[in-house]
Amino acid sequence: MEFEEKTLERQTIFEGQIMTVAKDKVQLPNGKTSYRELVFHHGAVAVLAVTPDDKIILVKQYRKAIEALSYEIPAGKLELGEAGQEKQAAARELEEETGYAGQLELLYEFYSAIGFSNEHIKLYLAKDLKKVPNPRPQDEDEFLELLELPYEDCMDLVKSGQIQDAKTIIALQYYALSKNHTK
Amino acid sequence: MEFEEKTLERQTIFEGQIMTVAKDKVQLPNGKTSYRELVFHHGAVAVLAVTPDDKIILVKQYRKAIEALSYEIPAGKLELGEAGQEKQAAARELEEETGYAGQLELLYEFYSAIGFSNEHIKLYLAKDLKKVPNPRPQDEDEFLELLELPYEDCMDLVKSGQIQDAKTIIALQYYALSKNHTK
Repeated sequence: MEFEEKTLERQTIFEGQIMTVAKDKVQLPNGKTSYRELVFHHGAVAVLAVTPDDKIILVKQYRKAIEALSYEIPAGKLELGEAGQEKQAAARELEEETGYAGQLELLYEFYSAIGFSNEHIKLYLAKDLKKVPNPRPQDEDEFLELLELPYEDCMDLVKSGQIQDAKTIIALQYYALSKNHTK
Repeated sequence: MEFEEKTLERQTIFEGQIMTVAKDKVQLPNGKTSYRELVFHHGAVAVLAVTPDDKIILVKQYRKAIEALSYEIPAGKLELGEAGQEKQAAARELEEETGYAGQLELLYEFYSAIGFSNEHIKLYLAKDLKKVPNPRPQDEDEFLELLELPYEDCMDLVKSGQIQDAKTIIALQYYALSKNHTK
């Protein structure tokens, strides 16, 4: 393949619960060698959930990677063996984090940090939301606060820097484009 | 701070050229302990570059993390000591990767993979593009092919899965929203 970087050697540095870290020695297209530091991840799902009164559901949570609170759309990592079952995973995360169930439609799939990681996110739209009578409980190590906000309030959180999460920005832009489209 | 996860212990696992990997033992808000696997990164810049004839510049390159070719907007990692000088870094990456210079305006800043990494990307719009007479050369380990495509062709690459990069999707949606806005 054009531009391909052939793996000459892989050093596995860390095998964790959510990631494997490796350092690859590669052969560049010009024959020289270089190194690539890589983070392999099982993937994740995210949900743009819009309530019947046209509000967007956000989750406020602490993110250790940035040592700060973050407002994001509901999301979660794929569990082992869930490859190919992203839609069910999205329904589960939606129910666990928000108590809602809805009709799910795939909007986008993307790599979040393609420069160093293969983390792949499938982003769904959830419509026709209904409260689940006895929703599954949240994960034991997750502490969340739910918000249901009109689009304009979400954009205020983007402007103030309280929303700085790529997948949430993608979802909010999609929402705005879909409104423009149907006008 | 609400929901804060206090660091009880940090184990530094890897100190690489582009990332530091750590495993933190944390105290959760309910007093229990858990672990967080984290990737610290110096940050990056990306540029939505629009030519005078309203085409979007894309870079085709091989991405080792996904072992595939990827179409993306021009982007690059911050070099050491460039924190706070993101605009200059964006101008440099634009020149190195495309041979253009232009007027830069900050559109968004976001964390690409907030669940495990602090990689922070500043996304700029570049307008009034002009070819630089003797542009800086590309990085030694980068092999790129440039494309200038109308928005509709970029969206075809999204639909076919050849654009699967989060920052590029954010840039394309921004472009679409800005066009709707001015209609």
